[in-house]
Amino acid sequence: MAYELYYWPGIQGRGEFVRLTLEEAGADYIDIARGADGVDALMAFLERQDIVHPPFAAPFLKDGDILIGQTSAILLYLGDRLGLAPKDEAQRLWTHQIQLTIADLVAEVHDTHHPLSGELYYEEQKPEALRRAKHFREERIPKFLSWFEKILVRNPDGDAHLVGRAVTYADLSLFQLVEGLLYAFPRRMKRTLGEAPRVAALHKAVAQRPRIRAYLDSDRRLAFNEEGIFRHYPELDG
Amino acid sequence: MAYELYYWPGIQGRGEFVRLTLEEAGADYIDIARGADGVDALMAFLERQDIVHPPFAAPFLKDGDILIGQTSAILLYLGDRLGLAPKDEAQRLWTHQIQLTIADLVAEVHDTHHPLSGELYYEEQKPEALRRAKHFREERIPKFLSWFEKILVRNPDGDAHLVGRAVTYADLSLFQLVEGLLYAFPRRMKRTLGEAPRVAALHKAVAQRPRIRAYLDSDRRLAFNEEGIFRHYPELDG
Repeated sequence: MAYELYYWPGIQGRGEFVRLTLEEAGADYIDIARGADGVDALMAFLERQDIVHPPFAAPFLKDGDILIGQTSAILLYLGDRLGLAPKDEAQRLWTHQIQLTIADLVAEVHDTHHPLSGELYYEEQKPEALRRAKHFREERIPKFLSWFEKILVRNPDGDAHLVGRAVTYADLSLFQLVEGLLYAFPRRMKRTLGEAPRVAALHKAVAQRPRIRAYLDSDRRLAFNEEGIFRHYPELDG
Repeated sequence: MAYELYYWPGIQGRGEFVRLTLEEAGADYIDIARGADGVDALMAFLERQDIVHPPFAAPFLKDGDILIGQTSAILLYLGDRLGLAPKDEAQRLWTHQIQLTIADLVAEVHDTHHPLSGELYYEEQKPEALRRAKHFREERIPKFLSWFEKILVRNPDGDAHLVGRAVTYADLSLFQLVEGLLYAFPRRMKRTLGEAPRVAALHKAVAQRPRIRAYLDSDRRLAFNEEGIFRHYPELDG
């Protein structure tokens, strides 16, 4: 039975981390909300009264009777089933720990353009966004990228992957994170990525994996846009 | 061998979620940074060059050779070992999903007093904090509390626990979340908690569990203060 992914159809957003893992594995999945009446289906699901494990928000994944929300929990689940996580328990948990740290950074990226509230438009919180984005660029991007670089340097199995010697969902997520930051903060990222050469190399290598390449070239891959998490507002870059 | 918890010694913060789980289980643990030279030990650990799985930030837990960062990952690990998570895979993942949603709310609580940057003092971002906290109180607290209430209502094993019929680390974390929100936003919370009676009941029940009660009454439990995540600034409440 195909996996069913529920996520907003117009953006990459957090759903993209799940899509990349499904695509790399060549898994059979349906991106429900991108079909006809898809958003209705997603909304109806969130409002159903009979769901014992109601997701707080999209994305969520349905695998037969199992329903899972929270991007990192979905990847923990899929990683095991799709061969994109180590079998060894400590390595498996380490992969998850990296994913959780990526998720923290993704939340911070969102708040660069919405520092006060997700219920307000960007234009209603622009002065605050300018200040928050400055700190984000100057403090947070370098801190996180240098952590990823450190992990690659220290990986006993080589610096081509975050964990072990094979690709995991954490590698795919780091690719997406770098891709999104390059879209949103191109000037800053071009400088900072130069100081994290292994992160830059991993980003390139993931984009060249055959299934990922095919996905990125397909119309299943949505373009970045200013409705998503990674938004390019030139005034927030620098 | 005792578990070693590394976290900042002056605050409850994210470390408190780990402490509560260790305490409920009666686990043997050392709160490293609260010992003599404890902060030095924590800092030294973060700066060591020989750690293959370097934590991004505290809290982190050392269990023999295993080192785990990220609060939710630590609880995933401890839940299994300390009997505070279901054995059934779907239920175990659901417990983790709830914890991840609690962690999201904790990050939002932090940003009510630090909407622009963790590197600035509260006083340097107070106008922004006033605006962010207003949205947080009015939109986010009710949304999250009603989700927890819904989970309790829908639990097929009864509304005394978030998952199944026994206490899990998610119950302990929800207790801590409510306790922190009551400290930080007492006026708002007293109103909102009235609309989530099962959440209020769970909060009370956890506080009465013998080991939790003994812990809360001990000097191992730090008081809330304005260095932590949950801070009482009356101007942010309402």
